[in-house]
Amino acid sequence: MPSKKQLISDLGEKKLINRIIKRTKDLQSNYFFKDPKINYSLGDDAALIDLSDIRNRDNSFLVLTSDMLLEKSHFPSQMTPQDRGWKIVTVNVSDIAAMGAIPHGLILSMGLPPDMELNYFDDLIEGVLEACQYYRLPLVGGDTNESSQLVLSGTIIGSVEKSKAMLKTGAREGDLLAVTGDLGLAAAGFEILFSSPEQQDRIKEIIPEIHIQKFIKHAIKPQAKLKEGIIAANSGEITAATDISDGLVSELEEIIKAGKKTSKTLGVRIWEEKIPITLELKKLAEYFTIDPLSWALYFGEDFELLFSIKKDALEFLKDKINLIVVGEVTSTGFMEIVNKKGETKILTPGGYQHLGG
Amino acid sequence: MPSKKQLISDLGEKKLINRIIKRTKDLQSNYFFKDPKINYSLGDDAALIDLSDIRNRDNSFLVLTSDMLLEKSHFPSQMTPQDRGWKIVTVNVSDIAAMGAIPHGLILSMGLPPDMELNYFDDLIEGVLEACQYYRLPLVGGDTNESSQLVLSGTIIGSVEKSKAMLKTGAREGDLLAVTGDLGLAAAGFEILFSSPEQQDRIKEIIPEIHIQKFIKHAIKPQAKLKEGIIAANSGEITAATDISDGLVSELEEIIKAGKKTSKTLGVRIWEEKIPITLELKKLAEYFTIDPLSWALYFGEDFELLFSIKKDALEFLKDKINLIVVGEVTSTGFMEIVNKKGETKILTPGGYQHLGG
Repeated sequence: MPSKKQLISDLGEKKLINRIIKRTKDLQSNYFFKDPKINYSLGDDAALIDLSDIRNRDNSFLVLTSDMLLEKSHFPSQMTPQDRGWKIVTVNVSDIAAMGAIPHGLILSMGLPPDMELNYFDDLIEGVLEACQYYRLPLVGGDTNESSQLVLSGTIIGSVEKSKAMLKTGAREGDLLAVTGDLGLAAAGFEILFSSPEQQDRIKEIIPEIHIQKFIKHAIKPQAKLKEGIIAANSGEITAATDISDGLVSELEEIIKAGKKTSKTLGVRIWEEKIPITLELKKLAEYFTIDPLSWALYFGEDFELLFSIKKDALEFLKDKINLIVVGEVTSTGFMEIVNKKGETKILTPGGYQHLGG
Repeated sequence: MPSKKQLISDLGEKKLINRIIKRTKDLQSNYFFKDPKINYSLGDDAALIDLSDIRNRDNSFLVLTSDMLLEKSHFPSQMTPQDRGWKIVTVNVSDIAAMGAIPHGLILSMGLPPDMELNYFDDLIEGVLEACQYYRLPLVGGDTNESSQLVLSGTIIGSVEKSKAMLKTGAREGDLLAVTGDLGLAAAGFEILFSSPEQQDRIKEIIPEIHIQKFIKHAIKPQAKLKEGIIAANSGEITAATDISDGLVSELEEIIKAGKKTSKTLGVRIWEEKIPITLELKKLAEYFTIDPLSWALYFGEDFELLFSIKKDALEFLKDKINLIVVGEVTSTGFMEIVNKKGETKILTPGGYQHLGG
């Protein structure tokens, strides 16, 4: 007779929390929680964070960000529980990276279906903590709640020197626009995941397995460009920055809008031939009869960073981080794209928005 | 012909966010956002917080807390959208208050059904901002997501002097246990809200309207004891503290458990006759043939604070905040209640837990 699987509702909230705390302490207590009060505070009403050993504290901003992921909106069934745990950390770290900040602590609030299996819960937390280790970020608190679907809400506090904080505001005419990596990879990964077994067999004939795996990894286990954000901020050569999880065009529009806060009329011009689209991505797009440019410009989920950079600092920065120039900041008030024939077209907004807007 | 009501899905996420930012700036920019960068950062990837004008910053902990409320689990239909917005702030402030901390910023992540009416959304935000004004706490960021039900996840960052931070750990044998207000009021309020119109008519004959309204207000628009928490922490006379949103007995158990972290075997003894239960609450409980003590000890949702206090500091503290002594800390390892006949009984756990634990 098969044994009945243990459910999280067999334990109750407090035991679940204790489970997380125990696991957190196992992994983190040696290097994160130097002050005994911090150690004690795990499981208390709120989390304590000691910033007293961070330099230039007086000149720093604390940086807080929060992002929520929901089962039905954000997690395709192909994602393992570990992938889901990893992703809630990554989406929040990406926002911290976009400010040039160093993350100091993660709070995780969860809505959990009572019939979730305990193994599933443990794997979810394992994914969260794996990402915490990867980004060197302590999980410092959170809560669980009963929910009809899985809801993960992450909050990260970080800090950044005031003079180094990178906002969307600050781009100037003549600045270069650059991204930190290839675009459209996550879009390609999702397209593969959602295709039929027959299509997947055909794709394997066209595209080397290593590239297929890369696409899928970008879709289900993306990595935030935290190191790149911190290095860029420290250089002092970035005039504006954001992550492009909502798609490049959507974020270019944000840079233009942010300019208005300082009463500047900005525009952007990007060059189609400079958009970093790999050969394998083109092949895959061709198979699906999709324009690869639409993946690169509109789909999002790539978790690269977009920088506006002082023109004469580009070479200096390129020595330190991977940067691909895709365009420049103008003063036209609108977005343009120069196609491969050299023709200039108006670029229309249309990056992914939630809630159908 | 009636005009079609505007839905949030007609606007899309960015417009909704801008709506919140605009409203936030209207209410808060004069006194919260002194540094222009803070003002600019609204709507950026993450929120900036400047603590440079807080005294004794070097000796402070940052305090982070996060709590989530979900439509189906936490919001009875009698709560207005404003009440719901108010409550997500209050539950988080209550955790901050329990640490003795001052709140500095709120992040609000939301899961929203796409067919939510815009008026409803505006009212929800109005409730959030009303509470922010009440607690003098700026809303500094957040995000929205599509969800089948309303999900509100709040995160507050606060700070507290290291030596003043109140944990659950720290109670000692002989300390007094005191609460900041009457218990069971929220339980009574929910009982009224869930009763039939006929029952409600009958209740109006037994209980003065002003008390009925008080019960209901405690249920649907509770207030966190923030001032009390800060005063108590500053006194230096509190050895342990927590809020009692999960019920008094559940939190007494937490104090005992927390003692184990410092290798202390603690117990508690409470006196039935000292539990603050109002005459009107007793009348209402009698009508429902419910033991009013079960409301006071187990139901929770009261958002009072529970303190363990150095015995000789009680009178000094009572001059500053409302305190009702309900018991004392022992070293028995278990919980006792002395009933009105002077008999000592073992008190069993059973405060409300989520997920059926």
